[in-house]
Amino acid sequence: MAVEQGPGAGQQADAGGRDRVRALVAPDRLREFFAPRSIALVGASETSGWARLAVLASTLTGFTGPLIPIHPRHETAFGRPVVRSLRDLAAEPPDLAFIMVPTHAVETVIDDAAAAGVRNVVVLASGYREVGPGGHDLEGKLVAQAAAAGITMLGPNCLGFINVTTGAAPFGLTVPLPLTAGPVGVALQSGALTSVVLGFARSHAIGISSLTSVGNEAMIGIADMIEYLVDDENTKVICLFLEQIGDPAAFARAAARADAAGKPIVALKAGSTEAGQKAALAHTGSVAGDDAVVDAVLRQLNVIRVRSLEELMITSAMLGYSRVPGGRRMGVVTASGGACDIIADRSSELGIEIPDFAPQTAAAISEHLPPFASARNPLDVTGYVLANAATSFLNAMDYALDATLKDPGLDFVLYGGVNPPEAAPPDELMAQAMEQRMAWISERIATSPIPVLPINPTTVDVGPHAREVLSRHNLHVYNGIDLGLAAVDSALRWQGSRGTIPAELLQRPLPDGDLTEAEPWSEAEARSMVAARGVPVVPGELVTSADEAADAAQRLGLPVALKIVSAQITHKSDIGGVALGLAAAQDVRAAYEKVRAAGAWVAGATVDGVLVTPMRSGGTELLAGVTLDPTFGPVLAVGLGGVWVEILKDIRLRALPVGAAEVRRMLEELRGIDLLRGARGSQPADLDAIAEVIAKIGDAALSLNGTLRALEVNPLWVNGDQVEALDVLIATGPDGKSGTELGA
Amino acid sequence: MAVEQGPGAGQQADAGGRDRVRALVAPDRLREFFAPRSIALVGASETSGWARLAVLASTLTGFTGPLIPIHPRHETAFGRPVVRSLRDLAAEPPDLAFIMVPTHAVETVIDDAAAAGVRNVVVLASGYREVGPGGHDLEGKLVAQAAAAGITMLGPNCLGFINVTTGAAPFGLTVPLPLTAGPVGVALQSGALTSVVLGFARSHAIGISSLTSVGNEAMIGIADMIEYLVDDENTKVICLFLEQIGDPAAFARAAARADAAGKPIVALKAGSTEAGQKAALAHTGSVAGDDAVVDAVLRQLNVIRVRSLEELMITSAMLGYSRVPGGRRMGVVTASGGACDIIADRSSELGIEIPDFAPQTAAAISEHLPPFASARNPLDVTGYVLANAATSFLNAMDYALDATLKDPGLDFVLYGGVNPPEAAPPDELMAQAMEQRMAWISERIATSPIPVLPINPTTVDVGPHAREVLSRHNLHVYNGIDLGLAAVDSALRWQGSRGTIPAELLQRPLPDGDLTEAEPWSEAEARSMVAARGVPVVPGELVTSADEAADAAQRLGLPVALKIVSAQITHKSDIGGVALGLAAAQDVRAAYEKVRAAGAWVAGATVDGVLVTPMRSGGTELLAGVTLDPTFGPVLAVGLGGVWVEILKDIRLRALPVGAAEVRRMLEELRGIDLLRGARGSQPADLDAIAEVIAKIGDAALSLNGTLRALEVNPLWVNGDQVEALDVLIATGPDGKSGTELGA
Repeated sequence: MAVEQGPGAGQQADAGGRDRVRALVAPDRLREFFAPRSIALVGASETSGWARLAVLASTLTGFTGPLIPIHPRHETAFGRPVVRSLRDLAAEPPDLAFIMVPTHAVETVIDDAAAAGVRNVVVLASGYREVGPGGHDLEGKLVAQAAAAGITMLGPNCLGFINVTTGAAPFGLTVPLPLTAGPVGVALQSGALTSVVLGFARSHAIGISSLTSVGNEAMIGIADMIEYLVDDENTKVICLFLEQIGDPAAFARAAARADAAGKPIVALKAGSTEAGQKAALAHTGSVAGDDAVVDAVLRQLNVIRVRSLEELMITSAMLGYSRVPGGRRMGVVTASGGACDIIADRSSELGIEIPDFAPQTAAAISEHLPPFASARNPLDVTGYVLANAATSFLNAMDYALDATLKDPGLDFVLYGGVNPPEAAPPDELMAQAMEQRMAWISERIATSPIPVLPINPTTVDVGPHAREVLSRHNLHVYNGIDLGLAAVDSALRWQGSRGTIPAELLQRPLPDGDLTEAEPWSEAEARSMVAARGVPVVPGELVTSADEAADAAQRLGLPVALKIVSAQITHKSDIGGVALGLAAAQDVRAAYEKVRAAGAWVAGATVDGVLVTPMRSGGTELLAGVTLDPTFGPVLAVGLGGVWVEILKDIRLRALPVGAAEVRRMLEELRGIDLLRGARGSQPADLDAIAEVIAKIGDAALSLNGTLRALEVNPLWVNGDQVEALDVLIATGPDGKSGTELGA
Repeated sequence: MAVEQGPGAGQQADAGGRDRVRALVAPDRLREFFAPRSIALVGASETSGWARLAVLASTLTGFTGPLIPIHPRHETAFGRPVVRSLRDLAAEPPDLAFIMVPTHAVETVIDDAAAAGVRNVVVLASGYREVGPGGHDLEGKLVAQAAAAGITMLGPNCLGFINVTTGAAPFGLTVPLPLTAGPVGVALQSGALTSVVLGFARSHAIGISSLTSVGNEAMIGIADMIEYLVDDENTKVICLFLEQIGDPAAFARAAARADAAGKPIVALKAGSTEAGQKAALAHTGSVAGDDAVVDAVLRQLNVIRVRSLEELMITSAMLGYSRVPGGRRMGVVTASGGACDIIADRSSELGIEIPDFAPQTAAAISEHLPPFASARNPLDVTGYVLANAATSFLNAMDYALDATLKDPGLDFVLYGGVNPPEAAPPDELMAQAMEQRMAWISERIATSPIPVLPINPTTVDVGPHAREVLSRHNLHVYNGIDLGLAAVDSALRWQGSRGTIPAELLQRPLPDGDLTEAEPWSEAEARSMVAARGVPVVPGELVTSADEAADAAQRLGLPVALKIVSAQITHKSDIGGVALGLAAAQDVRAAYEKVRAAGAWVAGATVDGVLVTPMRSGGTELLAGVTLDPTFGPVLAVGLGGVWVEILKDIRLRALPVGAAEVRRMLEELRGIDLLRGARGSQPADLDAIAEVIAKIGDAALSLNGTLRALEVNPLWVNGDQVEALDVLIATGPDGKSGTELGA
């Protein structure tokens, strides 16, 4: 189970301590941390399960450096002489100490480490922040102790790491073999899943650069891990299992660096958090679910969010081993019509196109097909061709691959021909043919103008013999149509979104204190505030008598709406404080009295007057609201009004700031977008104009800085190129109004 | 690629031939067919790839009966003497002939088979119906020839079958080993996927009773396969890969038999069909997509439709090996918090509950946990417990399992403790402990009051050693959280829907001829027709003058709507043939003239008059329409009106007939159902009353028999317990009106 808060690097410490911690997790320190040449196993005895696993791990990874058991009461362990204390190693301190002692003994061991000059430790013990307030304090002390001694610490409550390249494995769980070095750098906020991830990687011949269990992230946080992996030359793709994002600002900076470096981040984010504390006044908060906010933020950071462990690993593998296609036009070469149908179904769902082959492609393929098969995309060369093996070491799929690679209408090819046999072929001739064929395929894939993605139909293991053949020929195959196509789609999205992460995203600190404490503004104040920020607001006059109301209605144009204006009255219509569609002067007068009288229902309410605004008819109503997420700060929600929000929850979210271009993308993602495009006889709306206005609403919310609790325009009325805020709600925390410029 | 039409048993033949074919595919004949004790391989030579594969398959499955190569020009093959012709075996004909000769030679071989008294053949050759009209005729002749000789035929264009229990394997593709006998009976409309399915089954230690490639289904169709597998005592679950359902009536009967027998059908239906031919007049047709109809029909037949090959196999395995839980309350026992989080996320999506443990359960579990772990559901016993192995051969997960099995608040337990090591334990003591533990778990699962579903986190293979251990203890494990939970959900749905298949479903023959040929009725006729069937229709009067219109309006109650009535005018509002909201007599008169004049826009239209109906305000508008699907016949679509249908496509479909209870379920599945339940201040609608009316609309459509093309009530107006058809459209094929009772 996850700890309650993941603080990231040094968030536990005070300001001075925080700087010290930051230096200890800087990329150069972490490079040293994750490549120790000697490791002390503190608390290692033959009877310790963790120690047995740690020794085994280092044996299995082939770690060649010194592995020194430390124990106060044993002479030998695992065939090695035992040292009493880290202090005894002061002359030649080990590069890293893997501390497996019980929680109460950790402090002493850190002291020993400091005295011995050990710079790096992994703390396995539990009983810290994850158990509640007492453990939280204990963890704070631990961080301070380590930081004061200049020690970089992974954990506590973690299982350590494996550096597959160097073989260093201060790691407390089983390591499935064979363990292959490769492009995927893994960090997990779960100890037990390390083995699971390693097991799946083994099964699918996915190579790992390093794998780290980050535990409580008391010092080295997920963001630091990303920074380290961005710099690590053995890592091409960053693979994460997340339960929470403790330090969103650091995470965002790290994600932006990864994006700039062209290293994709693939993340499985599990575990719905508790319902966040949010201002309950506005509508936006109730529809912007915590997980939906996480989803939006990860997309804005160009982090690929996946749904399952299997997808996590296959997507990482594809980004690590294959080139990302330049577009969505896919050629498919298989020996199975059934597989073609499944591929076509999934591709259609994902928006991956399977265009017709160019005539010359079809002609070239036809030469290798039986008369009853047709050379169309997706291609089934049929089993006949494979059963009736020809004289060449190549088969019809291979010739077809060759043809599709030259097709000008394709961006990549999904290729079903990489499936080495389960065992070595029975005779030398067949073995030779198989080797020749694999070499040919490997060369084709390496030199092809468009990427080739070798795929097999289902998610089965790559067997031992196949693994060996593929490795010899530098080939990688993706097992599973569903997972493979999901990975292609993710890779294409990632590539399409590169370079779009706003530098300021998630960089504002959250206000302290109770975020649910929110004071609403009167609507007149709220209208002025957003109007001053360039948001078009429906004209309105604040009146204090029936006569003034009638005059104002005349000036504004009938029919009009009347609303009581008071900071203390938020649910105006519930108490009769709203009158709509007033078409004649006498109706306006009567409504004034009625609406004004409603103020008496709310004890102690200061009524500023009654707002007269012209009615708007036709067009479409939108909602644009900003709410304060307890983790990610101000989040913008955009949706169509009415049933679209209330029943369908059809809204799109982004952490602020967002520009108009991004808001336009939000609009285009709405399920009801066709209503804005003129469906059902409506006038097409000017999406750019709407996006401009909503971006300004977001900026207005940000201008409230730490006092913002909620800002909502509902409805935002749209008719053709007209966009107007019809109702504005603002709620701020303590000193909200005084801290900002009002109606300037 | 699939053949164009899958006809099922004997659909190709004439009526007399059809009966003959039906007898040849009756369950007792198929029982004989799939258990041959001797097999002739016709066309077998050493150089034939198919023959090599077939001989290898029979060797691998351990077939002990005679395997006789037949070839006109060889003396020996595969170490066996070759026989020249089937005719030479007349004295002792083989039980089955696997015919691997080229297409042009098949006819002669069938003649030989008939002459020799062979009763069963598998035809591998392609070039029949799947290649177009010429092949279609050839296939018809082949069926007639075989039927006349009393020969049961599988194929053509198939790869044969494997009977794992008897070892009979007239099969033309590779067989991954080990091949385990077990509860899953497989039939596929794809040849190449047979190997894929066998491979996945091998990887996950899923036992197969038999596997059949049905090819063109010229004689033995998918429905016949279901019937056979229902009767087969070795089969507990029926596993299908479908590209089309050629004979829906037979399929429905077979599905109903499987349901009655308690044998679930799990199907992967791939390959979107070509856009069906549908009457374009009504709205319903455009929103009832072909694949959505398939989805609805399979649900009505209680066939579990899955999304991937992996889900197909894991779901089949779970239904074959485990008991189906009695409810959705799940206990989860794992040693990984990360896995718990993933399980919780997926369960929440699927509506599987994870309730709190009962106090006594939590107390019993706590005894076996470290102090920092908490005994809550989903349970993570933490890695500490496993690393610090106790004296017992059981671990904390096992004790926790024991406790949860007695929890009265749980319907089943997802158990992460069945993961035998990859290799035999290093010493005898550990091996013994492992054996004892597996025996204990096996006994617990077998005798537990609630089902235990052993699950591991990811979709990896069950390794050779684990397979052996599991098999020895009669244990089955489901690898992959996503697939496992999807399977549980499917099993629960299947169980909940048993016994609900209407006997008449899909039993009506489709009309011959062009289904797009549809003649619309005038609205007055359509109103009368549905009213006569008990559908409440808004009151209305057909008038032929402005005065009559004004009088009618007075009687019906203002405001009213006027609509031109003419069978030839279907898009009335487009030509100004509709006027709404007429509140005064003079408005009605003026509108009459305008609406009547609109009739002049449609050349040759016979105008019956103008329909006056009272306006309905408030409430909600539904759509209830019946369209004729080219495969499944009359299909009912139900949805909310307006944007719900037009933009969100929020409709539910069912093949007719459906009763009111099923219609109510359709309503409850609508995304917008809350609107009918009183969301947004609307009056709650009487869902039972609506369901009654819609069921009558369905019955009205069925009463049109073969002439039905479309019947649509749009809108069906609902307000509280008031339900009224405001607009009725009927279109029928040739002789539609004369063939039915009108307004009786």
